[in-house]
Amino acid sequence: MTDPRNTALSYAHQNSQAFLDYLKSLVQIPSVSTSSDHAKAMKDTAENLANRLRGLGFSNVALHPTVGHPVVFGEYIVNQPGHKTVLIYGHYDVQPAEPLDLWKTPPFEPTQINENLFGRGASDMKGQVAASLAAVEAVLQAGEPPVNIKFMIEGEEEIGSPNLSQFLRANAPMLAADVVLNPDSGMLAADFPTLTYALRGLAYFELRVYGPEHDLHSGLFGGVVHNPAQALIELIAGMHDTDGRILLPGYYDSVREMSAEERADIARLPMTEDFYKTQTGAPQLWGEKGFTPAECIGGRPTLEVNGILSGFTGHGSKTVIPSWAMAKISMRLVPDQDPEEVHRQLIQYLEQKAPATIRWELIKMAGGPASFTDPNHPAALAMSQAMETIWGMRPVFKREGGSIPIVAEMQEILGIESVLTGFGLPEDNVHAPNEKLHLPTWYRGIDALIHFFYNYGI
Amino acid sequence: MTDPRNTALSYAHQNSQAFLDYLKSLVQIPSVSTSSDHAKAMKDTAENLANRLRGLGFSNVALHPTVGHPVVFGEYIVNQPGHKTVLIYGHYDVQPAEPLDLWKTPPFEPTQINENLFGRGASDMKGQVAASLAAVEAVLQAGEPPVNIKFMIEGEEEIGSPNLSQFLRANAPMLAADVVLNPDSGMLAADFPTLTYALRGLAYFELRVYGPEHDLHSGLFGGVVHNPAQALIELIAGMHDTDGRILLPGYYDSVREMSAEERADIARLPMTEDFYKTQTGAPQLWGEKGFTPAECIGGRPTLEVNGILSGFTGHGSKTVIPSWAMAKISMRLVPDQDPEEVHRQLIQYLEQKAPATIRWELIKMAGGPASFTDPNHPAALAMSQAMETIWGMRPVFKREGGSIPIVAEMQEILGIESVLTGFGLPEDNVHAPNEKLHLPTWYRGIDALIHFFYNYGI
Repeated sequence: MTDPRNTALSYAHQNSQAFLDYLKSLVQIPSVSTSSDHAKAMKDTAENLANRLRGLGFSNVALHPTVGHPVVFGEYIVNQPGHKTVLIYGHYDVQPAEPLDLWKTPPFEPTQINENLFGRGASDMKGQVAASLAAVEAVLQAGEPPVNIKFMIEGEEEIGSPNLSQFLRANAPMLAADVVLNPDSGMLAADFPTLTYALRGLAYFELRVYGPEHDLHSGLFGGVVHNPAQALIELIAGMHDTDGRILLPGYYDSVREMSAEERADIARLPMTEDFYKTQTGAPQLWGEKGFTPAECIGGRPTLEVNGILSGFTGHGSKTVIPSWAMAKISMRLVPDQDPEEVHRQLIQYLEQKAPATIRWELIKMAGGPASFTDPNHPAALAMSQAMETIWGMRPVFKREGGSIPIVAEMQEILGIESVLTGFGLPEDNVHAPNEKLHLPTWYRGIDALIHFFYNYGI
Repeated sequence: MTDPRNTALSYAHQNSQAFLDYLKSLVQIPSVSTSSDHAKAMKDTAENLANRLRGLGFSNVALHPTVGHPVVFGEYIVNQPGHKTVLIYGHYDVQPAEPLDLWKTPPFEPTQINENLFGRGASDMKGQVAASLAAVEAVLQAGEPPVNIKFMIEGEEEIGSPNLSQFLRANAPMLAADVVLNPDSGMLAADFPTLTYALRGLAYFELRVYGPEHDLHSGLFGGVVHNPAQALIELIAGMHDTDGRILLPGYYDSVREMSAEERADIARLPMTEDFYKTQTGAPQLWGEKGFTPAECIGGRPTLEVNGILSGFTGHGSKTVIPSWAMAKISMRLVPDQDPEEVHRQLIQYLEQKAPATIRWELIKMAGGPASFTDPNHPAALAMSQAMETIWGMRPVFKREGGSIPIVAEMQEILGIESVLTGFGLPEDNVHAPNEKLHLPTWYRGIDALIHFFYNYGI
């Protein structure tokens, strides 16, 4: 009798084109969760995934409604004692594609150029969801699967998963599992399989500043009112000192400092200054004084201006004093910062610093704490072994700068650890124009997932 | 024989509705000069004005092409010795109407509500051009006019009149006159007829800051690159100190300080703190320490952010580090500041302060020096007397915060002084949504202009 693992791998290799075609069909649907313009595309994507699960023989497949976009769920349960359960997490929403004029290929027309597939969501994370589905299809093709498998694919990750914790609380029995497989984290490089054990959290705000009641002529009124753009600029400029440290009151009080061992581990990563210079194309790196770039990303909190808008920004000139200004401001948080506490710190800063010449308003938009997962969990070791089989090297265990709030929520609400991995690369332009997926890495990822199921299962 | 002055006034009163209808026909045309989207409207407006002049019996009526929008010219010359010539300046372009959602009536559908006519350009300055044409029509109706009249109406005032000085140089003989009547300056209030003798200049720039080569994910890269929005913010924040003074190197070196007499004159104006609070609706006034609001407007230079844009500014949240940021920055200048010198000061500031973590680019967009005119010119006295006849009080002589570069150019290039007046009010929302014209003041203005021609003429 053939080893089912080999049967599954053979099936995967024979069906590589079908797997890719399915991924393309997903990328074609503009499932942008951030605006209400794409409601139909969101629903179409969720239904597409549900149909795919039904086609694989999954049971209890359904779109579970939330206040926002539905969660797709389905399960494949083998009625055998001792079978462990893997809950595969994914999200089917993508970032907005704007600015559209910077895309070399249309964002929602997946285009293969040499070894890469270009399109919004190709890497983050329709590619990862499709890889998981492909691996599961191959495993099911080889007979009874070595583990029970559940899929939970949400539609609001790119807007901070505002309704997921409630969904987890309401459906804890349905979601029960031994481990979460979360492939929303990437690799350091195509030849560096990576397991992520720490993630930064997020707190995202919109700050609005109001000055005069209406736009004013800068000649007739310039010099007697506090320009709200300038007032906003002054407030934001005061949020960092010249060493790149953040000046919100008490911001670093609950930051867990990296241990000497962690800093030594980080120093061994291939993420040098040159790596970040190449990845970003910035004229020169910047960051909090006293920390290496990799430490800044993995272990230090940030405060970023994600957007700012005021007044006349079109072609030409307009001599206006704007009546309002706004900025999108977000912080990446590290353990043990609390998004609610950061919200209070920002309010406190504004109360202390905002002048009486303007009015301000702060809107909280999204947030989630940082998270750690156990790198010695049996599933993490099974994944490590799977990756070593495919890439010929033990994966790198790393701290990541991004935020996956679901990891902390899975721990807190369901008590389930996550194995965090994925087959995207730093140069995939996620959240930016020309997002792409490196297909050879993606195919290796499918093989690694197949090995993972057999390594972890009975 | 009836006094022609009274005939003209009677004619004006009998034709008030026709004058208003003509103004409405002008406001209907969206002659926005700042973008190329309105090229046809610009041409239509110029032709409309030329036809109006032809209808009044003007000669040599023509649209004089420039690199940008044409200048409308026409003249009515009486072949009598000793006749003085008044060159009436106007502009037919208007500010962009954006933001459109803040207009209570459509900007290019002139709408009368009680005593006001709402519409873009109703006050600045189609209303003033139409008042001048109405007064001239009335004067011509009463027989031979007391002065020769020339009209020069440009189409690029709202973009800084980039081609006007060349037009003046090329057409000096055609434009020869004893005085320029420039009704592009307003009144302090409906019961305060006003003659303006000083104007601020303007220097307008776009500052662009470039950081990473493309937008970055704020999780994957936040903390190692200098966010260009933040870098731009830091640069702009450093341009003022906490006393509202501008920190460009040498910025105040050539500022002509107001004399004690001027400051005493300004103190007598009705432009109190309360006046500016009411006009602007700002929570609290702001300004350069050591100067009253009226002094700040009339005699002190400014630096304003007219617009700023970077990153994601739509609805919702996007965790992006933008790759670039830009701001429109302009200065209102006072005598004896030189726009070119200010340009150099801004470059010097940026060279000193811009960090190596970003690249920057400064684009000069418009500029003109401040100007003074002679308040004792015979034409100024004729206008003062005309206003006193209509309003029953001598007009206020004031310094204004706005810029009318043409006033300085008329002095420098053609050697002609300007009488600066106009019948717009501070609450007209010029350069803002819901621009309007106060019609009772406008009709008084037409009468005052009729008196002016007879007072000044023979």
